[in-house]
Amino acid sequence: MRIEKDSMGPIEIPEEAWYGIHTSRSLDNFDAAGETLPLEIVHAIVRLKAACAAANERLGLLDKDRCQAIHRACEQILAGRHDDQFPIDIFQSGSGTSSHMNVNEVIANLAAVELGGKPGDRTTVHPNDHVNKGQSTNNVFPSAIRLACLQLHRGLQGALEPLVAAFEKKAEEFANVAKSGRTHLQDAVPVTLGQEFGAYARAMQKAGCRIAMAAENLREIGVGGNAVGTGINTKPSFRETIVRSLNDATGFSFTVAENGIEITQFMSDMGQVSAALRLLALDLLKITNDLRLMASGPNTGLGEIRLPAVEPGSSIMPGKINPSICEAANMACVQVVGCDAAIAMACGLGQLELNTHLPLIGANLVKAFNILIRTSRMLEKKCVLGIQADEQRCRNNFENSAGLATLLNPAVGYDRVAVLVKEGLASGKNLKTLVLEKKLMSEPELERLLSKAFEPNL
Amino acid sequence: MRIEKDSMGPIEIPEEAWYGIHTSRSLDNFDAAGETLPLEIVHAIVRLKAACAAANERLGLLDKDRCQAIHRACEQILAGRHDDQFPIDIFQSGSGTSSHMNVNEVIANLAAVELGGKPGDRTTVHPNDHVNKGQSTNNVFPSAIRLACLQLHRGLQGALEPLVAAFEKKAEEFANVAKSGRTHLQDAVPVTLGQEFGAYARAMQKAGCRIAMAAENLREIGVGGNAVGTGINTKPSFRETIVRSLNDATGFSFTVAENGIEITQFMSDMGQVSAALRLLALDLLKITNDLRLMASGPNTGLGEIRLPAVEPGSSIMPGKINPSICEAANMACVQVVGCDAAIAMACGLGQLELNTHLPLIGANLVKAFNILIRTSRMLEKKCVLGIQADEQRCRNNFENSAGLATLLNPAVGYDRVAVLVKEGLASGKNLKTLVLEKKLMSEPELERLLSKAFEPNL
Amino acid sequence: MRIEKDSMGPIEIPEEAWYGIHTSRSLDNFDAAGETLPLEIVHAIVRLKAACAAANERLGLLDKDRCQAIHRACEQILAGRHDDQFPIDIFQSGSGTSSHMNVNEVIANLAAVELGGKPGDRTTVHPNDHVNKGQSTNNVFPSAIRLACLQLHRGLQGALEPLVAAFEKKAEEFANVAKSGRTHLQDAVPVTLGQEFGAYARAMQKAGCRIAMAAENLREIGVGGNAVGTGINTKPSFRETIVRSLNDATGFSFTVAENGIEITQFMSDMGQVSAALRLLALDLLKITNDLRLMASGPNTGLGEIRLPAVEPGSSIMPGKINPSICEAANMACVQVVGCDAAIAMACGLGQLELNTHLPLIGANLVKAFNILIRTSRMLEKKCVLGIQADEQRCRNNFENSAGLATLLNPAVGYDRVAVLVKEGLASGKNLKTLVLEKKLMSEPELERLLSKAFEPNL
Amino acid sequence: MRIEKDSMGPIEIPEEAWYGIHTSRSLDNFDAAGETLPLEIVHAIVRLKAACAAANERLGLLDKDRCQAIHRACEQILAGRHDDQFPIDIFQSGSGTSSHMNVNEVIANLAAVELGGKPGDRTTVHPNDHVNKGQSTNNVFPSAIRLACLQLHRGLQGALEPLVAAFEKKAEEFANVAKSGRTHLQDAVPVTLGQEFGAYARAMQKAGCRIAMAAENLREIGVGGNAVGTGINTKPSFRETIVRSLNDATGFSFTVAENGIEITQFMSDMGQVSAALRLLALDLLKITNDLRLMASGPNTGLGEIRLPAVEPGSSIMPGKINPSICEAANMACVQVVGCDAAIAMACGLGQLELNTHLPLIGANLVKAFNILIRTSRMLEKKCVLGIQADEQRCRNNFENSAGLATLLNPAVGYDRVAVLVKEGLASGKNLKTLVLEKKLMSEPELERLLSKAFEPNL
Repeated sequence: MRIEKDSMGPIEIPEEAWYGIHTSRSLDNFDAAGETLPLEIVHAIVRLKAACAAANERLGLLDKDRCQAIHRACEQILAGRHDDQFPIDIFQSGSGTSSHMNVNEVIANLAAVELGGKPGDRTTVHPNDHVNKGQSTNNVFPSAIRLACLQLHRGLQGALEPLVAAFEKKAEEFANVAKSGRTHLQDAVPVTLGQEFGAYARAMQKAGCRIAMAAENLREIGVGGNAVGTGINTKPSFRETIVRSLNDATGFSFTVAENGIEITQFMSDMGQVSAALRLLALDLLKITNDLRLMASGPNTGLGEIRLPAVEPGSSIMPGKINPSICEAANMACVQVVGCDAAIAMACGLGQLELNTHLPLIGANLVKAFNILIRTSRMLEKKCVLGIQADEQRCRNNFENSAGLATLLNPAVGYDRVAVLVKEGLASGKNLKTLVLEKKLMSEPELERLLSKAFEPNL
Repeated sequence: MRIEKDSMGPIEIPEEAWYGIHTSRSLDNFDAAGETLPLEIVHAIVRLKAACAAANERLGLLDKDRCQAIHRACEQILAGRHDDQFPIDIFQSGSGTSSHMNVNEVIANLAAVELGGKPGDRTTVHPNDHVNKGQSTNNVFPSAIRLACLQLHRGLQGALEPLVAAFEKKAEEFANVAKSGRTHLQDAVPVTLGQEFGAYARAMQKAGCRIAMAAENLREIGVGGNAVGTGINTKPSFRETIVRSLNDATGFSFTVAENGIEITQFMSDMGQVSAALRLLALDLLKITNDLRLMASGPNTGLGEIRLPAVEPGSSIMPGKINPSICEAANMACVQVVGCDAAIAMACGLGQLELNTHLPLIGANLVKAFNILIRTSRMLEKKCVLGIQADEQRCRNNFENSAGLATLLNPAVGYDRVAVLVKEGLASGKNLKTLVLEKKLMSEPELERLLSKAFEPNL
Repeated sequence: MRIEKDSMGPIEIPEEAWYGIHTSRSLDNFDAAGETLPLEIVHAIVRLKAACAAANERLGLLDKDRCQAIHRACEQILAGRHDDQFPIDIFQSGSGTSSHMNVNEVIANLAAVELGGKPGDRTTVHPNDHVNKGQSTNNVFPSAIRLACLQLHRGLQGALEPLVAAFEKKAEEFANVAKSGRTHLQDAVPVTLGQEFGAYARAMQKAGCRIAMAAENLREIGVGGNAVGTGINTKPSFRETIVRSLNDATGFSFTVAENGIEITQFMSDMGQVSAALRLLALDLLKITNDLRLMASGPNTGLGEIRLPAVEPGSSIMPGKINPSICEAANMACVQVVGCDAAIAMACGLGQLELNTHLPLIGANLVKAFNILIRTSRMLEKKCVLGIQADEQRCRNNFENSAGLATLLNPAVGYDRVAVLVKEGLASGKNLKTLVLEKKLMSEPELERLLSKAFEPNL
Repeated sequence: MRIEKDSMGPIEIPEEAWYGIHTSRSLDNFDAAGETLPLEIVHAIVRLKAACAAANERLGLLDKDRCQAIHRACEQILAGRHDDQFPIDIFQSGSGTSSHMNVNEVIANLAAVELGGKPGDRTTVHPNDHVNKGQSTNNVFPSAIRLACLQLHRGLQGALEPLVAAFEKKAEEFANVAKSGRTHLQDAVPVTLGQEFGAYARAMQKAGCRIAMAAENLREIGVGGNAVGTGINTKPSFRETIVRSLNDATGFSFTVAENGIEITQFMSDMGQVSAALRLLALDLLKITNDLRLMASGPNTGLGEIRLPAVEPGSSIMPGKINPSICEAANMACVQVVGCDAAIAMACGLGQLELNTHLPLIGANLVKAFNILIRTSRMLEKKCVLGIQADEQRCRNNFENSAGLATLLNPAVGYDRVAVLVKEGLASGKNLKTLVLEKKLMSEPELERLLSKAFEPNL
């Protein structure tokens, strides 16, 4: 055990710990979530620390040795070698001070040892005066959330694109599978199964665009704004310099916040990302519900498609195969809605110069991103790519759909077709039979009409 | 025009207005919702005013003449003769002071005229010193919400009971309509259509109980607590006396709040009612979704039931009949979820001695109640009572369901039955055919088994 | 009374009604919301009808006389002369067929009379075959929601801009009012009151941008897609032609949906707008909470600003002035969160070729827009423009804030300043006194430092 | 590696795994949440398995040896010795079949080895035919959620009671600390700090009651209902017998569901618990916000109470102490709101005989319970018990509050007091000074009035 001291008094720290007194206090204080702050955010803080050290050195506020030592410490952490040194519960100081100081302490101690000092000496490299120089939690922490989200956004794009491609592949594969459309769950005008999958591809692509649009707004960051965003205790060029370092290191194109105070108080840019993730989740909910509906059966459902079987579906009903991947995805989507509810509420709860719900917002964003990344991949690989059409069933539905009669409107008129449909339902005769019986059209005429049932046809 | 004056200065009031200066200011101030506070709450405030006047008279704090005049004024308002005198927007003073003073003013002026005074004279009957004697918005307004909700709760019970009865009637009617159950939307073990409707009846009945349990908690009221709930400027027996008057007049059994301060700050009793209404809405959402699913068709869906046709379903597809009543009910349920989201958020936003979101909470509760009352009635009368079973379709599904094989488990074992089901799916043969072909059972044995497919059968 | 007939049978219609049989059935069927569909959507449908008639005529599908008669009918409706002819409840057919047919019928009858026919004759101008030619509810109704929202968006911009300007005006006015920042509601580094109002201006401006970005996506419309979006029963150029007519008439730049099927099934573009409105609401919630907090008092609160008094605040506490405008705005914001909850849930509930929650989505969007328009105006005019600073109180807070010591960090170091702050709190001495007593700095040095407390200062 | 086989084919299983082929498939299939199903639910399933085995034996459906072996297997698991054998992601089969079969397999293999068999032999003890005898996921899994919640409810009661006691202790301690009440954040009539803490105690106690009421409804369980709740493949007395075994083993008083089908389809009893947890969370949100507000300062806030300092509050502002425990609790509450949003939505998404969102509902309930248990404890121990009053500051606020004048109403009248208050605000004189100056009362009269400012005083 070593002893460390701060303005509140001394405390014992485990000898092997790279973290210090602040972390120790926080560990003792907080245990509400039962989960530690996501490493995605911890690592993003570390990247910001490296960029700030570089900026401080460039501006002559930090000596080269300490700067280099800090950089080497950061690299170690980013390489994943100290992941167990960030044990603080998500629900901590509302600004994230606890985890932020945790990072400052671990870096300071690693850097101190690099320079021949000792963990906890607070002189070789000081967690506040050196590692945190010109910074404050209120700007570092939300900037880290923004950085983490941009990285996760790359991951999400990488998972969404193959999902879009999978839907497009199926759209092509099923391009000629005629079936009945269904609106209000009732027989409607014809559609091809391929058109349906094409719609899913387009929906996913649009959802990706909305997220990308929202992610754009994350590039504005407040780091260097210091406590309330005014930039107190820094040089005028500090923020620019940090951002340049950060962009060099990460390849993103961050910009200095236009208004440092606004960006410290308002988390709406994050709320926008959360809302865009929610929209993707709601679209996926709809799509997985559709897939389950079209795959309903095997004998008493719609049975238009077959989903890949992934496991026996029931502990009691032998031979049952359930749409489990869709269900898992479906639940994942509902969870994202829950994450967004928490984030949105938190966005509204800021007070004066700060919103003290940052760790909650950050953790829920990371969670929502990761859920959607995993879900997109799972859905693509375990479900969409293996979907098969039951072409015969689809064809039967096409021919027997009560909606098919709509094609006669231009020739026969709405009111008379309505009577025809009623007659068909009563007699059980399908449209073709009725049309030919009543000589409303010749068979070739009708066939020509049917062949243009999936597009403009006048 | 007449001139009235308060601590902020004089103002012109239309000669014919029964309301006074406070209402006038509020009318000018507030226009955010574009809707006036629901009359249900206005009338509940009036009932409280009458009870308070009676209590004040009983305690010797108000003379008999003024008390009687106030009572007559209240009766006029409750008879609906002055509904246009309460024009204030829902989003007003967060405690509801605007509408509360509106009521005080209208009563004071009506009572003043009764006693030979003039509207706005503020001496014959004073809106604050007499009508509002010993009261404050912070306790009157939430008490009024409680009263209004209890009255609406009676209405909801009156609408739910026939709905439950309608489901029970159908449960009986369809008691022998065998069909395939569906879990995960896949063929499952058998069920009767009657059992399904019986489940809906039970679900509605439980939902009603949850609301009733929540409504119980509304009986605790804070009226007479005055401003922060301490009962300042009243006599010790004031609260008891009001509650007694109120119970006499309404037939409810209100009780004096155990802790006057808590009840002024926390709106959780209302939040509980809202949550219970939300549960009813979510149950109805599920039920109407089921009905739409079972009624899907006419030719390409499940088609197990037929909903009453209420209107042509499509402007383009002739003869289309949609489950419009279910859809309307479905949307109504989603709206109730939205009301609850607003109420819940508002419940969390109280500060110190008050929650300044009372009119929002009250208005959304009234809205949710009314939506559910109307929806229950509509669903009962326009849909449930007219539902018909397609017994043949149900029977076919019963016989062909892949879930039927589960019945063989005890005799044959899960793993072997699983193979059998797979074979059935491949060959298109149903269970009966397979069992007889393979001589797993004699036909009478199988029939006996099938006849006990809807209950414990060992 | 006149008699009309459809596929379900005959019905009596009031002689004076411009609507017809479908509307009559719907009036009888639906009463769940207790509110009629907003006129904003009705009028948007009418605008689409006019554009479609023009397109049909251009394509030779509708004769010139009928087209002109339809146009004149639309003009009458848009002029507000038949607002009472659209009485259908919001919660109706889930696609909005009821209100859509209502519009078709009113236009058909008005146009029929123009051409010498009679209301309800269904031959002079037929609601389906002529007014609705080549259209379907499933594409007209959501297109109308999009159009209505774009018009409301103009209104919102018109209300937000002056609000931003009001905050900017105050930012300038209060540019030199020094005060203590507060993070975690605890004394933090200095800020000017003007900087705070500048942050509000920026937040509102960003919120407006997010809404504008979302509104952009509403320009893609599906009208002409017909039932499921395939464009059945139309000419290939129909959609383009409608969009051109519509753009000519409205000045917006709508585009034909890239994928007609996707746009019929997915309401996520609307969900995005709702989410952007929610973000504005959450920002306004935060701002109005801040204003209430800074205005708390008069004697026992922070008292840094004074809000304009709008009405006596209490029915029991004389002289009390409450921040009622902020409270009203605050509730309005919470209501918008409720609207969004309903919209988001509805967005996830689409099934196959349609989402049967369109009227709910539309009505809640209209409501959220209108609430925010009114709230922005109210807040600007009744509150922000009249806010006054209590400069003395602010100055005192600036000088006595425990956060002021942060300025000494660069010179003295974090750990030693922490001890100094503790001493100040214990002795009740403010920073200036301590610094001078301990001769940490000369008075001119300290003054120079304090003068740069609101910006980078190294 | 060993090979296991099911209806879908053979698969390799790690030799040391106690789970079997179904678990293996699920492990490969599901990875959307990135978190395994909570052990609370796994263990509850195990308890149900033991009860079912006992019931099966009692009914002669399972031999004694297998029953005993199953019991020993269950005991091992409940002792925590196989926690790593339940690795399946939360988002799996929507009924929880994956985790349910996981439990069945682990028990079967442990029991098989007890009886001299080998893991995976599926004959000594079969996961479906023996361990799952007469059961189905659709009834076991939700019953397990109910059991897990009842156990967690005990934990929550154990954490809430000390929190209530802590608030009561403070209520007593601060019983004579006079202060100004604040409504609308404006000076209101007097209150004691003790009264405020008493209100918190009462609010927490009521919140606990609401949860207890909701938990009552969890006692109704569907286990033994089998697949769709009809009890297929069981004996008539099976359900009763299981429930009796379960009550013996757990001490709860479960009852057989009145309607087995309803309880399989509707998760509203769980939704009710979630809503009650949400209400507790919203109350705690309000309370922690109040504590932060009253503790605001140290120099520029209200400063009426001091929260225990738990860690330095800022990485940049030395000496800053933040209300971090309150903030952590505050975030925890917002998270619970998020959990509830997911649960509520899931409750509405059931279809026909099943709701395929069970693992999501269960996991979020477990999470919400655990968060509230931890938060209640943290708040009690790290915050409430250590709160101190600043009596002087409170007293000053009492004397200077503009709300104090309300006490004069009965003697002087609302309108005249309003003028007096205005004068006080303008001149800066407090009530006492004004009253004595104007000779409205003698000093002793005034003192007597002030001494009764916290209760009925007429």
